[in-house]
Amino acid sequence: MELAYEKRATALLVIDPYNDFISEGGKVWERLKPVAEANGCVPNMVQVLDAARNAGLRIFYAPHRRYRPGDYETWKYVAPVQKAAWSRKTFEYGTWGGEFRSEFTPRPGEIVAQEHWCSSGFANTDLDLQLKRHGIQQFIVIGLIAHTCVEATVRFAAELGYDVTVVKDATASYSEREMHAALEVNLPNYARAISTASEVVASIASL
Amino acid sequence: MELAYEKRATALLVIDPYNDFISEGGKVWERLKPVAEANGCVPNMVQVLDAARNAGLRIFYAPHRRYRPGDYETWKYVAPVQKAAWSRKTFEYGTWGGEFRSEFTPRPGEIVAQEHWCSSGFANTDLDLQLKRHGIQQFIVIGLIAHTCVEATVRFAAELGYDVTVVKDATASYSEREMHAALEVNLPNYARAISTASEVVASIASL
Amino acid sequence: MELAYEKRATALLVIDPYNDFISEGGKVWERLKPVAEANGCVPNMVQVLDAARNAGLRIFYAPHRRYRPGDYETWKYVAPVQKAAWSRKTFEYGTWGGEFRSEFTPRPGEIVAQEHWCSSGFANTDLDLQLKRHGIQQFIVIGLIAHTCVEATVRFAAELGYDVTVVKDATASYSEREMHAALEVNLPNYARAISTASEVVASIASL
Amino acid sequence: MELAYEKRATALLVIDPYNDFISEGGKVWERLKPVAEANGCVPNMVQVLDAARNAGLRIFYAPHRRYRPGDYETWKYVAPVQKAAWSRKTFEYGTWGGEFRSEFTPRPGEIVAQEHWCSSGFANTDLDLQLKRHGIQQFIVIGLIAHTCVEATVRFAAELGYDVTVVKDATASYSEREMHAALEVNLPNYARAISTASEVVASIASL
Repeated sequence: MELAYEKRATALLVIDPYNDFISEGGKVWERLKPVAEANGCVPNMVQVLDAARNAGLRIFYAPHRRYRPGDYETWKYVAPVQKAAWSRKTFEYGTWGGEFRSEFTPRPGEIVAQEHWCSSGFANTDLDLQLKRHGIQQFIVIGLIAHTCVEATVRFAAELGYDVTVVKDATASYSEREMHAALEVNLPNYARAISTASEVVASIASL
Repeated sequence: MELAYEKRATALLVIDPYNDFISEGGKVWERLKPVAEANGCVPNMVQVLDAARNAGLRIFYAPHRRYRPGDYETWKYVAPVQKAAWSRKTFEYGTWGGEFRSEFTPRPGEIVAQEHWCSSGFANTDLDLQLKRHGIQQFIVIGLIAHTCVEATVRFAAELGYDVTVVKDATASYSEREMHAALEVNLPNYARAISTASEVVASIASL
Repeated sequence: MELAYEKRATALLVIDPYNDFISEGGKVWERLKPVAEANGCVPNMVQVLDAARNAGLRIFYAPHRRYRPGDYETWKYVAPVQKAAWSRKTFEYGTWGGEFRSEFTPRPGEIVAQEHWCSSGFANTDLDLQLKRHGIQQFIVIGLIAHTCVEATVRFAAELGYDVTVVKDATASYSEREMHAALEVNLPNYARAISTASEVVASIASL
Repeated sequence: MELAYEKRATALLVIDPYNDFISEGGKVWERLKPVAEANGCVPNMVQVLDAARNAGLRIFYAPHRRYRPGDYETWKYVAPVQKAAWSRKTFEYGTWGGEFRSEFTPRPGEIVAQEHWCSSGFANTDLDLQLKRHGIQQFIVIGLIAHTCVEATVRFAAELGYDVTVVKDATASYSEREMHAALEVNLPNYARAISTASEVVASIASL
């Protein structure tokens, strides 16, 4: 599989590396754990992040809205995925669950986009602007959850003109059913490549 | 299932009712036919469209880019779903395959949005503007293909703030695998309801 | 002048009511003071806000990016208006200048959109989403600065499908030259009405 | 004035070169003629277009909606600039006024974006997508009208992350009042440079 990148135009995008998703004790971790542990999701995310930092790629983060009281009470319509976030208070602002897992703490010079309200890291945020202001045209995606925020962000990226690589063992979902829907049915239509962490690390290292 | 709508704020959205998708002889029809014939896709689409017209709902169409020579040759990156459209010349401009199936010919006063280049009817088009200019906040979706343009358009709609109902037997895809990914795994997160044509027709009739 | 509004679909939008703009001692106040004091900008802003709250209109705020170290150093291109914000550190995060003037402190249930990076309150933020999620189709604008953020936000609003009223004595700029460009040359093309605070207060009171 | 461009990332954008604007007999020509003839608008537009073609820059066109019957009748709100276009039937589809002046006929390989409904060439169109798909990050603007479509497109471009040069004697408006508002008050905040045709031609020639 060809994974050539233009170094100056390529970034790593880390989606929702919150404790609530990927740390023991997080609100959604128990549901993600079977898939995440089976494919080595968290260690693979760390490995790709390290490789990208070592290669000097620009790092971006697309964080989900951290729940705050009053977020949805006045909305005329609330999408089901938002109702779920509301009832669970996922990523509650000011709590440990609403912080990034420590390995994914942004370093100076890394860009954290504005929080997204639904699933796409691009919708109603400055992610597209920040990518453009840094000259980025291609990016590699790691993070959570495969069939919601990851799939949504990659679909939007293709609509907006970006060239995307998804790291399939650096993401997770509730079961193989959702992983299959995202990684085998849908994302091959929008991502240039669906690769493994080791393939991506090798490609990055050669830049 | 509750399917209440505010009549003046509700529309029907018809996605890609091209001959190439849903007419005998169309370029993609053979691949869609098994699912489409099994669930009555085309007659159900017609039934919902008739009901919406009779109820006085505003009708919108979200058409895919009709292929024209030179569309992709100069692009730096082309998404896989666009490479497929390019190689097949799907909905070729000026050909029968690039016309709407006759039952779905827009009538005066019905709104045809600009053509979309990838899968979402909203991306890089005037669909959001046209819905707003007509005061629309909720819409019902019929059309093709369940896991590409329909799913993409519904995902974007939720991101943009719309309340959406998907008519599950007025859409189709290549096999039950893609139907499952779109209608059972993904869209329940973004659509307010996934309903049948008969449920939707009954709800519309009562407006 | 006709100023009819649909109450449930109408909001007040307050743009950039920062101390740096409209409080004695703010970084830009000296430049805005002559126009702002001549037209009663701040008292008129307060009067319109009070009237909107009393009438039960939904209140939204569109705040400019509060300056943080590292905001622009890595950008490939920086627009002149952003270079100026960078050099002045306008609305510096964590400082008094980066807080709203006290009369404009948002109350519970009032919506503060994400910070905008350039001039339009809509660009790269969740303002359009929040307006839609609350069923808003018309809004009244007060705030700063007439020819940059106010004009940009009203221009975008018209592009996005909103019906806008600008309160011409509840905004200000550096001199009559910029006020003229915004309020007499440009905004009459995009706003439904350019009104006075007293006209708007009277219209709101009758809702 | 420094006008350096990265050749592969730079394009020329031609806005609304319709006969109705810049040809003898066009519906709006009489209003634009005094300014356009005084600054050599049309010959300068031709000169910049020729230079850009000779230098191998990619050429894009941002065309206004060509009027068609039924365009606005069903809209809940219509912005004043759109009411004017409606009443004049500017750029009527199928008429000479709705064709580009002959010197500005797009050549094969040049990109015509979808029609814009209001003033910004980016709003509700595929212009941002087409620029990204061609790797464009900087562009030079010529065309009409300085304080409406040109100013709106440049303002949006800055919001979206582009680096823009405006050619001040390859645009026109109704009088010096509007030219001043656009070119001296507003656009210096958003464009990297406001240059003359001869300066731009010299810069392009050296690429």
